[in-house]
Amino acid sequence: MGVNFAHRPAMKNIYCDISATTPLSPEVNEFIFKIQSTVFGNPSSIHRFGQEAKAVIEHARRQISKAINCSPGEIYFTGCGSESNNLVLHSLLKPGDHLITSTYEHPAVKKPASTLESAGVNVSRIPPDKDGRISPSNVEHALKPETRLVSIMMVNNEIGSVNDVVSIGEICKSKGILFHTDGVQGLGKIPVDLAALPIDLMSMSAHKLYGPKGVGALFVRRGVPITSILQGGGQEKNLRPGTENIAGIAGFGLAAQLAVETLEKSSTHLKNITQIFLTSLTEENIRFSVNGSHQIPGVLNIYFPGIEAQSLVIRMDMAGIAISAGAACSSGTAKPAGALLDMGFDIDRASTSVRISFGKFHTVEDVITVAEELGKIITPLQKDPLQ
Amino acid sequence: MGVNFAHRPAMKNIYCDISATTPLSPEVNEFIFKIQSTVFGNPSSIHRFGQEAKAVIEHARRQISKAINCSPGEIYFTGCGSESNNLVLHSLLKPGDHLITSTYEHPAVKKPASTLESAGVNVSRIPPDKDGRISPSNVEHALKPETRLVSIMMVNNEIGSVNDVVSIGEICKSKGILFHTDGVQGLGKIPVDLAALPIDLMSMSAHKLYGPKGVGALFVRRGVPITSILQGGGQEKNLRPGTENIAGIAGFGLAAQLAVETLEKSSTHLKNITQIFLTSLTEENIRFSVNGSHQIPGVLNIYFPGIEAQSLVIRMDMAGIAISAGAACSSGTAKPAGALLDMGFDIDRASTSVRISFGKFHTVEDVITVAEELGKIITPLQKDPLQ
Repeated sequence: MGVNFAHRPAMKNIYCDISATTPLSPEVNEFIFKIQSTVFGNPSSIHRFGQEAKAVIEHARRQISKAINCSPGEIYFTGCGSESNNLVLHSLLKPGDHLITSTYEHPAVKKPASTLESAGVNVSRIPPDKDGRISPSNVEHALKPETRLVSIMMVNNEIGSVNDVVSIGEICKSKGILFHTDGVQGLGKIPVDLAALPIDLMSMSAHKLYGPKGVGALFVRRGVPITSILQGGGQEKNLRPGTENIAGIAGFGLAAQLAVETLEKSSTHLKNITQIFLTSLTEENIRFSVNGSHQIPGVLNIYFPGIEAQSLVIRMDMAGIAISAGAACSSGTAKPAGALLDMGFDIDRASTSVRISFGKFHTVEDVITVAEELGKIITPLQKDPLQ
Repeated sequence: MGVNFAHRPAMKNIYCDISATTPLSPEVNEFIFKIQSTVFGNPSSIHRFGQEAKAVIEHARRQISKAINCSPGEIYFTGCGSESNNLVLHSLLKPGDHLITSTYEHPAVKKPASTLESAGVNVSRIPPDKDGRISPSNVEHALKPETRLVSIMMVNNEIGSVNDVVSIGEICKSKGILFHTDGVQGLGKIPVDLAALPIDLMSMSAHKLYGPKGVGALFVRRGVPITSILQGGGQEKNLRPGTENIAGIAGFGLAAQLAVETLEKSSTHLKNITQIFLTSLTEENIRFSVNGSHQIPGVLNIYFPGIEAQSLVIRMDMAGIAISAGAACSSGTAKPAGALLDMGFDIDRASTSVRISFGKFHTVEDVITVAEELGKIITPLQKDPLQ
């Protein structure tokens, strides 16, 4: 998959911030263009223009349900992953209920949890262990008779670490407690089989898997009593109002299908280039340490002693390489990656760690170039006796 | 502007349901494709990929603010017009407050109003007069000391009638009460100058003005104390979370610009073809009566005695012509247009009236063809002495 940088001046332009967002697959872009050229009815209209639009949505719903092995009727389209997360928490929790979540969730879970806490919901927040993962036994120990919902993300956005959603889900299932996972960073990166996984609700987003921005989805297992927080025209079985983003939904469907079809090949490729990248860092004589473990392929949170993360991001950007000092959604602020502090690292390590996330389009040459550029910036600083 | 029906079998395919949704302008589609090919960063990222995406959004914000003559900082992007409406009502009203709205608002205002009423908000609902408009003096008479918000739509979606938002807004302004208008059916159809209009909040949607589906906006006049109902990554000055729909927003910006640039020409054209259409109906010997007055150019709600609206919609659809028996968002149900009942018409008239809405791409030949097809279906029924 190529990304068109034809409009850019000649420079490296290597985008290593796949966890923040992915470029749109050219195939998906072409498909969106075609849909937008030919299908435009309002899916709620009974005439053929409306029904044609409805058929596009239902096709995408089947593609996504097939990608995660659930029933099409269990997929609800939303405006984004954040909306899906908000919907779950605001819909399912009422004052007096108990919520178990983690300290390192995406803000679209953390902030609604805090809002609900102010309204009388009791919230337990579990920090990740040193490996960047939430311990299932810690979830179990936090359970109370009034626990209504457990919301633990599938893959952490800052570390890339995969949580044991099987064990956490089994604990919830055995107690009859609903289990929601923010699957935004997981879908398309690791296999997700909802026929086997003990997950009741899962948030998804198209723009993390080479699909379009502006469309998300929520898996709601049949029987889970979710209700809408926004009201309107009755779309999505009354769960999410507003004329449907037909082309975006169609693009999401295709992107999900492609992601799953190419998952094995992509994973192998990403594991391979990640290993080459780490070897290259060593060859560049860079001192570093990878934070956490059990990462999804291609995502690394790395401690480079001797250089502030923000400074490294800016210097790499000047060299045409995009990396991140933390999650994009909090990178406007200069705060260090909160997940690292939660994992027990000190503020120095948290502020000298960056996230580098590779995509399926990166080549071996790309990752070697990234390591070389890091070497040019970091090696002199690490040799400085003041560091 | 042409609409590509290349994939359809040879038939008339005249889409006269512009009030439900518009086809995407080919120019906007090309622009979206180009943006999606070249700009994909997360606007919250500090590297150039992110900043480039942010610049696209800010450009669109300026285009929209210019189109409605407000400050760019007063425009907030949302997922759809329904979300904008929900945001206003859920954010600004608390138990004990009084809301004045109308009986014929879009469900995205009506339903949140009912939800809030159950939670202790006092709601007054004003029906439209026989002309399909809300009387400003009825709004004035409904005022109470605890009135917090007046929410009256700019243009009704079923009738196409334009409300006197100047007078309603002046009444609110004189009492220090917030005035929200659902402008979804107005923007791009009639001039909207927010520097002159006494409007505090206005909901907008791209897909009603030849822009993409899946993106809306909310105008919030500086100083109006609105807060978010969904929480997350801090986008849109904390009012609407979620990675921004960059290409959709860009398309909205261009569509708004084009709509305003071509407004005068489109209006003249639409008034002309509407007049030709009405003359043609008479020439077809069809008995009919237009419901309401003060319609935006191109939109007609018409009573055709002798044929059920649903039946007429289906028969016209079989002839390749799309019209509507009411608003799309409620057309899944077989209910007659609620607005007509609210205007004082009886159930018989309400169930034998359809909405026909023309767009800027329709030709004189198109509207004559529509009148002829209506004649083929309706004239024999109206001659039937049983009718």
